[in-house]
Amino acid sequence: MHDERYPIGEFQCPQSISTQQITDWIEQIEALPQQLNKLTAQLTDAELTYRYRENGWTVRQLIHHIADSHMNSYIRFKLALTEIEPTIKPYAEDKWAELPDSALPIDISLTCLEALHRRWTVLLESLSNSQLKRSFHHPDTGTMPLEQCIGLYAWHGAHHLAHIEQALTLKIR
Amino acid sequence: MHDERYPIGEFQCPQSISTQQITDWIEQIEALPQQLNKLTAQLTDAELTYRYRENGWTVRQLIHHIADSHMNSYIRFKLALTEIEPTIKPYAEDKWAELPDSALPIDISLTCLEALHRRWTVLLESLSNSQLKRSFHHPDTGTMPLEQCIGLYAWHGAHHLAHIEQALTLKIR
Amino acid sequence: MHDERYPIGEFQCPQSISTQQITDWIEQIEALPQQLNKLTAQLTDAELTYRYRENGWTVRQLIHHIADSHMNSYIRFKLALTEIEPTIKPYAEDKWAELPDSALPIDISLTCLEALHRRWTVLLESLSNSQLKRSFHHPDTGTMPLEQCIGLYAWHGAHHLAHIEQALTLKIR
Amino acid sequence: MHDERYPIGEFQCPQSISTQQITDWIEQIEALPQQLNKLTAQLTDAELTYRYRENGWTVRQLIHHIADSHMNSYIRFKLALTEIEPTIKPYAEDKWAELPDSALPIDISLTCLEALHRRWTVLLESLSNSQLKRSFHHPDTGTMPLEQCIGLYAWHGAHHLAHIEQALTLKIR
Repeated sequence: MHDERYPIGEFQCPQSISTQQITDWIEQIEALPQQLNKLTAQLTDAELTYRYRENGWTVRQLIHHIADSHMNSYIRFKLALTEIEPTIKPYAEDKWAELPDSALPIDISLTCLEALHRRWTVLLESLSNSQLKRSFHHPDTGTMPLEQCIGLYAWHGAHHLAHIEQALTLKIR
Repeated sequence: MHDERYPIGEFQCPQSISTQQITDWIEQIEALPQQLNKLTAQLTDAELTYRYRENGWTVRQLIHHIADSHMNSYIRFKLALTEIEPTIKPYAEDKWAELPDSALPIDISLTCLEALHRRWTVLLESLSNSQLKRSFHHPDTGTMPLEQCIGLYAWHGAHHLAHIEQALTLKIR
Repeated sequence: MHDERYPIGEFQCPQSISTQQITDWIEQIEALPQQLNKLTAQLTDAELTYRYRENGWTVRQLIHHIADSHMNSYIRFKLALTEIEPTIKPYAEDKWAELPDSALPIDISLTCLEALHRRWTVLLESLSNSQLKRSFHHPDTGTMPLEQCIGLYAWHGAHHLAHIEQALTLKIR
Repeated sequence: MHDERYPIGEFQCPQSISTQQITDWIEQIEALPQQLNKLTAQLTDAELTYRYRENGWTVRQLIHHIADSHMNSYIRFKLALTEIEPTIKPYAEDKWAELPDSALPIDISLTCLEALHRRWTVLLESLSNSQLKRSFHHPDTGTMPLEQCIGLYAWHGAHHLAHIEQALTLKIR
């Protein structure tokens, strides 16, 4: 059954992560800002208010959320690379999406994502095999190894990209 | 005596913070990316390797550090606005400055700062008096009210801008 | 020398207004209806006819005046928040105090003040730093920034509260 | 044809206004707060979000608007009674409806309306024939005699009462 909250399904991490898999994920992370730009380049203000499901976020909120989320994720990678399994700080994403900067034009977050993903990609490509095994501790969900986290955020970008496509199709207000 | 680590001195928070002071600080935060762009627009790769003091960061590291630091700070503001005095996660700034993405061209972090400071400024300008009294808890330095934190980051930008000017004058390698 | 027209002195606006000052003023505005209720709860009809000075308003007129005045002030705040420095309409407060609704039981205006001050306080607490710098134009007295106006009405409440206390002490008819 | 913006039609002022007409109108103004209380007493938070038409105000906004509007109107009556055809200050009602105090519980504005309408009704009942001929000047719509303005606000209350009934029937979000 189709679940409109998960248009591409939930993230399934392979038991064994191949180096090719990691390369593919990093390429997906690298590609996301361009895909978002393409998908949203011609959107009107009205289209930016469409929701991907009843009471779900609008296209505008989705884009600002991706910027917030990936900024947090980038920081978690750097924490894990410079400390021994640090406990990271979760954030209340629904409340963040209501803060006033989530009403700004989307090009601000798109620009931010472009620059951020360039730094992030360079960082990810530099990771040695032993660095990929480093991890951080999430207070709610436990230990997260970086190699798995790369897959999670490749999925996360595609997940919200599909939300935006869904919002533009369903036109829910 | 001049301390080359603190070319503009350390941050001194006024006992009582006026609304005009906050307006001025926000304007300084808003202006920083332009000032950084201007100061670094014509720099050669060699100039980007100058240090502001012996064993201090290079101009390139300073710029990437400002982007990292202000990304963390922006996140702390949002945490304080959406949770009750959250304990934030410090980071090891010296180790971050050695990670491979700190060797990237500076325009990536400058672009990131431009977009980030636009979102940040909108958020700061929206803060009501009672929101300005909200705070986060830093595990090492204790409670930090947001109004004081605005001053701290207005100072932080000017502090590192002065470092870059100093590096370009002293040409330390 | 004591001036019985100004039992707590005239309003003195600090040169620089701190965020703490604004918080204090808003709390004073919030507290006024309770203070008025307490002070007037047991008053007889005779006591309501006492004047705070020769030919000054009676206690009854004072209470109706506070309701009129704060209703006008609340409207001026909303005008300043929704237009660019609007010119507001002054009113002839002495003539208003002679209109027949100023002879009504005081509980009507006290109830009105309670509800009005709740709406007003929520509005004031929501004001951002840049909104506090907005202003209206008074045809007689010129530009009034909202932050200063908050102080003026914190004072205005205390000013008339002191008038009522003075009237109940001096018992002038 | 039914126009959902005007469920009871627009205000039609009779050519000749009888004293009986004025008495009826004042009684309608007097009755409004009770009618609003009755209609909204059991509403859930969800019901308060219903709109009377697409992109129209919610029930909550309608109630706060009535309080704002009648406060302004009450002030205009007093201005007209104490000055010679004063020019009154219009207000941007749509922008007022977006200010944060329009998100408050409705009982605050209902209480305010109860107290306000008591003062207003006493004032209106006291008006002599010559006072009924006094007027104010509205910068956009010109001269408004008080007797006509009484009819306008009797209509205005019924107009928005019908909007609320319509919103509760249509359940538009």
